Amino acid sequence: MFNQVKNTKVYEQIVEQIKSMVEDEILKKGDKLPSERVMAEDLGVSRASVREALRALEVVGLIESKQGAGNYIKEDFGGLISEPLSIMFMLQGSDPIDIFELREVIELETVVLAARKITDTQLEGIKDILNELKENFDEDQNVILDKKFHYMIAEASGNKLIIDVLEVLSQLIDNFIKDSRKNILADTSNKEELDKLHDKLYDAIKNRDESKAHYIMKEHFSLIKRYIS
Amino acid sequence: MFNQVKNTKVYEQIVEQIKSMVEDEILKKGDKLPSERVMAEDLGVSRASVREALRALEVVGLIESKQGAGNYIKEDFGGLISEPLSIMFMLQGSDPIDIFELREVIELETVVLAARKITDTQLEGIKDILNELKENFDEDQNVILDKKFHYMIAEASGNKLIIDVLEVLSQLIDNFIKDSRKNILADTSNKEELDKLHDKLYDAIKNRDESKAHYIMKEHFSLIKRYIS
Repeated sequence: MFNQVKNTKVYEQIVEQIKSMVEDEILKKGDKLPSERVMAEDLGVSRASVREALRALEVVGLIESKQGAGNYIKEDFGGLISEPLSIMFMLQGSDPIDIFELREVIELETVVLAARKITDTQLEGIKDILNELKENFDEDQNVILDKKFHYMIAEASGNKLIIDVLEVLSQLIDNFIKDSRKNILADTSNKEELDKLHDKLYDAIKNRDESKAHYIMKEHFSLIKRYIS
Repeated sequence: MFNQVKNTKVYEQIVEQIKSMVEDEILKKGDKLPSERVMAEDLGVSRASVREALRALEVVGLIESKQGAGNYIKEDFGGLISEPLSIMFMLQGSDPIDIFELREVIELETVVLAARKITDTQLEGIKDILNELKENFDEDQNVILDKKFHYMIAEASGNKLIIDVLEVLSQLIDNFIKDSRKNILADTSNKEELDKLHDKLYDAIKNRDESKAHYIMKEHFSLIKRYIS
């Protein structure tokens, strides 16, 4: 299965080989990797090197090691790379506003895609969330519903990558805007304005009016920005 | 410097502690980490565990190990996470079109930010590239110049995160659209149309006309999409 490796940066080559096997579809989601002993033999390296490579892939979120059962290619990549990304943002001294801006950039066009591609079932799902949002005055609940609303728009874009990236950005930004989000929703006049914007957004998507959807999403972000900058 | 760790997933806790130190600005870009021996002693774990954690951080691209000199927090995160991201895309069975679409999504709004924030020096830089592009008929050169043009627009957005993310997406997509990009630029009528669109884009940015810039970028992507889908 594996080939012998030569150089000093052994673990990099192991990662490289695993990558090739994924590329060639020898390894797929959920697959079990050979045991560390077998990999070490196949690769002609120490078990310590194999373990280094596996731990690295685990940190990155590509494999998971199940107690006593071995190592598996992950089924689900949710939360993947959000850890290293968040360390990077801190090291870069990234301004939370930059992260927020990237989220805005993506959401402005995601809603355009949603208006183009949304299905009737997805429209109903969004309508249900909006009704819940209007009837609910529990702040914590509203934060969750509000997030779900945006998630469902991303889902309607039909682009898995966009959904994942927005998820990661949301997680990162959550630490920064948690309080402001609560402040926005706690203010009754804001909540009313947001409910109105959400309704308009829903109508624009439903009517497949792409430029209207874009415009309303922009207004939506303007409202939020008044609170976070 | 470090605290003793308890649990089984030792390397995760080490990564966690390094993350905390970055958060608290005890560790900064370019800083040298303590030796593996010292870290193992501070943490009360084996050197093998420390090495696992360090290799993981290296794969993620957060630290680099310099031969004989020890481990350093990276100065530059270029190319960071593009490796794990590309493995993930393959495992997800991500459609290249999805990656392309996310790039379009980001570029459509990045040019809006550029129109809002660009400096005179940056405008001159873009003008120079466009002149080179028009005078040049070497395909390989044009591919590089064309990329540079888009990179400079991203730079003008003033958002480091957007620049990084577009870079990663570009790299990933390069493998997929390399040939189509050449095909587009090899066709003289396309090259003329692209030159015209680039000029219009430049004018819109220069005139701080955000919606025009957005509109032209959309046309620009329509032209490319005719070749890749």
